[in-house]
This record gives sequence, C-alpha cells and structure tokens, in this order.
Amino acid sequence: MLGIGGEEYHERQAAMRRLAARSGLRGVVAWSRGGSAQDHYADVYHLTGFYQHQPFVPDAPGRWRAQGHAAVVLPVDGPALLLTDTAALREPRPAASLRTAPDLVDALADQLRASMPAGRIGLIGGEAMAAAWWCRLRSVLPGHELVDADHLGWAARRVKSPAELRLLRASGALGARAMTAARDAATPGATEAEVAAAAIAEIARAGGAYYGMGISSGSESHTFAASDPAPYSADRRLSAGDLLRIDLYGSVHGYLFDLARTWVVGEEPTTEQRRLLAAVRDSVWAGIETVRPGRRVGDLARRCQEVFERSDFAAHHGLPASEMGGAWGHGLGLSFEPPWVAEDGPHASERIEPGMCLTLARRIAMPSVGGADYEDDVIVTDSGPEVITA
Amino acid sequence: MLGIGGEEYHERQAAMRRLAARSGLRGVVAWSRGGSAQDHYADVYHLTGFYQHQPFVPDAPGRWRAQGHAAVVLPVDGPALLLTDTAALREPRPAASLRTAPDLVDALADQLRASMPAGRIGLIGGEAMAAAWWCRLRSVLPGHELVDADHLGWAARRVKSPAELRLLRASGALGARAMTAARDAATPGATEAEVAAAAIAEIARAGGAYYGMGISSGSESHTFAASDPAPYSADRRLSAGDLLRIDLYGSVHGYLFDLARTWVVGEEPTTEQRRLLAAVRDSVWAGIETVRPGRRVGDLARRCQEVFERSDFAAHHGLPASEMGGAWGHGLGLSFEPPWVAEDGPHASERIEPGMCLTLARRIAMPSVGGADYEDDVIVTDSGPEVITA
Repeated sequence: MLGIGGEEYHERQAAMRRLAARSGLRGVVAWSRGGSAQDHYADVYHLTGFYQHQPFVPDAPGRWRAQGHAAVVLPVDGPALLLTDTAALREPRPAASLRTAPDLVDALADQLRASMPAGRIGLIGGEAMAAAWWCRLRSVLPGHELVDADHLGWAARRVKSPAELRLLRASGALGARAMTAARDAATPGATEAEVAAAAIAEIARAGGAYYGMGISSGSESHTFAASDPAPYSADRRLSAGDLLRIDLYGSVHGYLFDLARTWVVGEEPTTEQRRLLAAVRDSVWAGIETVRPGRRVGDLARRCQEVFERSDFAAHHGLPASEMGGAWGHGLGLSFEPPWVAEDGPHASERIEPGMCLTLARRIAMPSVGGADYEDDVIVTDSGPEVITA
Repeated sequence: MLGIGGEEYHERQAAMRRLAARSGLRGVVAWSRGGSAQDHYADVYHLTGFYQHQPFVPDAPGRWRAQGHAAVVLPVDGPALLLTDTAALREPRPAASLRTAPDLVDALADQLRASMPAGRIGLIGGEAMAAAWWCRLRSVLPGHELVDADHLGWAARRVKSPAELRLLRASGALGARAMTAARDAATPGATEAEVAAAAIAEIARAGGAYYGMGISSGSESHTFAASDPAPYSADRRLSAGDLLRIDLYGSVHGYLFDLARTWVVGEEPTTEQRRLLAAVRDSVWAGIETVRPGRRVGDLARRCQEVFERSDFAAHHGLPASEMGGAWGHGLGLSFEPPWVAEDGPHASERIEPGMCLTLARRIAMPSVGGADYEDDVIVTDSGPEVITA
C-alpha cells in the first residue's frame, strides 16, 4: 500500500521535537502554502500529511489573512496542532488536531502564546511567510522570537523512510510514463501544447499532480521562460528534425519526480544534434554511476563535469555558461531541496547516504541548434544508484 | 489576434506612474512569483507580459536568492526595468529592458538605489515577498521606505481593456469546454482522476494553463481539502447517482477562468439532490441577472442571498454556515482579486463599471447528501451581464 502511515507522522513529530530541543528552541512552527502553489507545502505536509487546496486570495483586512496557507505548531514538550482556514477534510485525516480560523496569522500568534513560553521558536518554511504576516507576528508576540530553522526541516527530510522511498519510486515511474506519452504524441505537425497535454493527462489519470514543465522545440533554446503561465505553445507545430526538450516535474502523494529528456522529432539526429544529446546524457549518467554511500556530493558534480568537458560537444563548441551556480542536480522529496550537487558551495563536502534521493541534470542552450536537457532521479542504496526515472 | 500588444504595456506603465506620483511615491516595485505557483504573477505580468517559469528553489546563501521570482522597478520619471534570474526568453519579449542576477533581492536593492532617490516607494505584490527578503532590503536600503501599494495594483487592474476582455472571453470559453470534457468523462465506473484528466488535458491542448480544482463525489462534501497535492482520487470510482462537484480554475495567456458545476452521474437527481443543485444555481443566476453598471457590489450579494433564502433547500434544511465571510464571488483577471462580492465589508458600496469581470459563486456542503458548487464568470457591459463561462 502506497502512502505514509499515521504512526510515521508521529515519529516525524517526535524527531522534530528532538531537533528543536537540541537547538535550544521552545518548539517549531512549520509554515506552508497550498492552493495552486507547489513549492512550499513540504514542511506542514511532512509533519501532518496535510495539504491545503484552498487557493490563495489576497488578504482582506478584518475578514481573512493568509488564505491558502497552513501552520503546524509543535512545542518541544506538547502535541502538534494544525492551523488552517478550512475544516473540510478528506481521508486520510491529518496527523494532528485541527484548529481553523479565517485569520491564520492571528490564530498562529494565539496558539504560540498558549502553547509555548516566551523564547526562541524555530520557523520552518519561512520563505512562504510574507513580510506583512511576519511583522504582524512580531508585533503581537513581543516575547517570542521566531528564528529561521529551515536547516531543521532539511535535516529531518534528508534521508527518506522506506514508505517515502516507495512513493518516490512510484513518482519516478509515473514521470517516466508521462515522458513516454509526450514522446508518443510528438509527431511532426503536433503542437507543443498537444505534446504537453499528453504528458499532463497521463499524470492526472494516475492520480498524480502535474506541477510544471520547461519545453522548447526546434532551434529555440530557452529553458523556462515563456512569457505566459502556460510553458507550451498551441501555435508552435513540430517539424521532422526538430529538437524537442522537456523538463517535467510533478508528484505522487506529494513526492516529486523531476526528469528531463530531449530528442529529435521524426528523424535521426544530425551530427550536431547528436553531440548535444550525448553531452547532456553521458555527463549525467557518469555522475549517476558514481553514486555510492560515503561519496561526497562534490565528487558527483566533478565526475559529471569531467565527462562533459571531454565530450565531443565541448571539443567543438567549448563549455557553455553554467546555470544555477554550476549545479548538476539537487535533493528531491517533498520539494526541490538540498544538497545542491556542485563542485563547490555549502554541500560539496557532504557525504551521501542510503535513503537519499537526488536528481542529476544538465541543460545546454545552443542558439541556432536548440536546447537539450537530460535529468534522472536516483535513490542512494547500499549497493549504489537506483535510477527511478529510467 | 488574442494577446496584449506592446503598446498596451507601455500605457499600463504610464498609468501606474501617474497613480504612484499622485500617492507621493518615488515609484513602485512590482514583485511576482512564477514557477509552478499561479497566485502571484499578476503584478509583473500586467506591467511587462513577463512570467517566470523557473521554479522556486530554496535560497542558497551567496549563490542565489528568490529564484523563480521577478521584479519590475518603475520610477515615476523613468523607464521600467525587469529583474529576474534568467535571460532565456521566448517571444513575445517582455515590455521592459531586462537585467538578470542570481540574487534577485540584492539586484533589486541596487536597482532601486540607482533609479530612485531615497524616499517612499510603493510595493505591489508584497504577499509574495518573504520576510527574510524584506528584511534584507530594509537593511541595505535604509533611506528607501517600501510601503504597501497593493491598492494601486488593484486600481490599475480593476477595469479591463478590450484586449483583456477578449482574453477573458477566450479563457471562460476554454473553462466551459474543459468542464464539458469532464462531464463527458464522468460515467459510472470512471475515477475522479480520469474525470480531472479529461478537463486538464482539454485546457493544456488549447494552450491554456490548468491551475487547480476542487473536486468531490458521492456523499463527500469537502470543497478543497484533500490531504494530497492532487485534489482528485485515482481510487474513488463514480457510481450512478453520485453527486459530482468540480470547481475549476486556470488561464489563457494568464487571464483566469474560474467556474464550478455540480451534477448527478448517470441518473436523474433525487429530490434532495435537485434541491441542492437548484439552490446554488438559482441564487448565483439571480445575482448575475442584476449585474448592470452603477449597481453596488453589495446589491449583487444581497440578491443572491435573497433567492438562496427563499429556496426549497433553505425551507427544508435552513441556511448553511457561510464560507469566505459570506462572499458570493470576486473580481477576476490575472488573479482572484477585489471586489469581494459580499453584503458588507470593504467593497459592498463600490459601484460596478463596464469592463469589470466578476465571478459569482456558491458552495454548499451537506453531509450525507454531498457537496454542490455553482460558479460563472461575467463581464459587466453597458447593457448588462455577459456570462463568459456558459
């Protein structure tokens, strides 16, 4: 059975209490956003299994505040409480008692006052906390100091449980099936939007959630920017010989897949296209092959980079400008998360462990030829890499 | 031709400069989020036509900050500048010159320092500005005071241009087609996920963007909460006689549709179901029929409420607890926006004008029978309501 059992949520809460106590905190607040936003649900969801579907609507003073958000208040010595703006729940129920209020910010202040003595409280998920809400909390809770505690959230979510790994495998497999559906739909004459729809429908039919994609075709080489909330074009029709690049992400029960493929529509690749495709795929796969417990994160990036530099592409075109600080991937779970797989930076010296899930990825944008992406998700096991998006 | 012409963006920038000057501001900053988040793109998109597809990833100190966001800096006496973290653009190009930086917060501070003298600057879209970024701006820009100016954004976007109305009509029509696709797929034995996939694929194939849905079936009466980022279930199969409730939202070139329907799968409704369906539909339609320039927003809500109170449903079951402060709808454009259609509250006395777009909506959750939603989008014209989701 796929899913997280109720007991696991209580273990997560207990683990977070220990992390908080060790940091000298009175407790933590996990703050998350839901609705149609998929980038900040991880912290509340991890502790309680709760996702808030009510979309965000702008604050209406005196009526509601922070709609579409949720908070978990977790004292080091007391039960978890979930705060949100709706009581309309579906099974399975969240693993915390629920309090609802239209003004989530003031309700959070009340709950903090009631459940924790004044002092330092860790805030997890603070990048979803608007400045105005933060200022309100500070003004009504002068004795409680909210401090950034995202590192506790990352620590708690770094190594996945067996149930989480099952969900990540199911998610990776669904992402791969969706990519196959896109490939089947990508015949000459089809629009980018038709190709995208095939992938998205495959995800939804299986009960997964589509979050976003980067798509470009032909000689276009952009990655994510499309000047429209829909990343695909209903006007752009594929021609035989076009490069088609798709970076696709979504989830199964909240656990992400994130994979990218590039191929040539309806024809064999030209020499130039083949070089581009081989450079991104071979460099990523070289990194995947080095995945083993005890390896350093930076070693993975170094291996990718070595193979990339030795590629036929690099021999002919040199090295393209790197993106995202040269990162070759990142952690994956309920969000895009640390560690960032780079040769330097804060995570380079971290050793990888069994139960971690990473993506390894490379994009190149090559004006006139087009763009290429390759990305796979891999679980670190005792015996090496388990690629879950193959 | 659907879309916003380049000239219109420059008119919008000029109008925003006038609003800012009249408020005694040095200029404004519009701040927006993109990626897979659909609730905060409106302000940057309205001024420039730019949407940022790069998904949010957590800040990595010294490497990047506020990934997946964008800002427009608009002095009252100078050109607009767009700041974001990617230079990979697609046609049409944004209507502002572009500067890219991995640390969007420090780049914004630099740009403000360079383009506006110290003083008060209006912040539009501040609910997407994380507290940490706000604190950073304040510390590096001690002479510049960022003040909440969301009211200027709402004022600028309240009455839609002819080009915007064309997009809203196209969007409403696509939403209605997607709902029809869901209805066609909703046969006994189909899963909620299959029904959802039919609607979502219809949206994507046409080049639209799916943002979210509320869906429930059978005697379930929740609205948005599903404890999973996917609101639909791949396990829940429809039976003949089930109520099926769908609230669907998405966009065409950024302009939203937002409609809800409820029907009975594969059978005629029972008396109880018929009462529920009639109560939500008839009350919403009574409100729509009163839409006329010069009417007050509160009058629309009052008319909806009157008809609801006189319904057969209310006679048998009384009035259900209201949600969202009793609102019967809201403004619609590049976001869910003011005015909130309620009998009281801050917008009740506002007069509606030609070129506004509103949704009128009602949900009821009735344990044991199920939930019902009805929602349509309507443009205010000189001669009355133009329903665009029929």
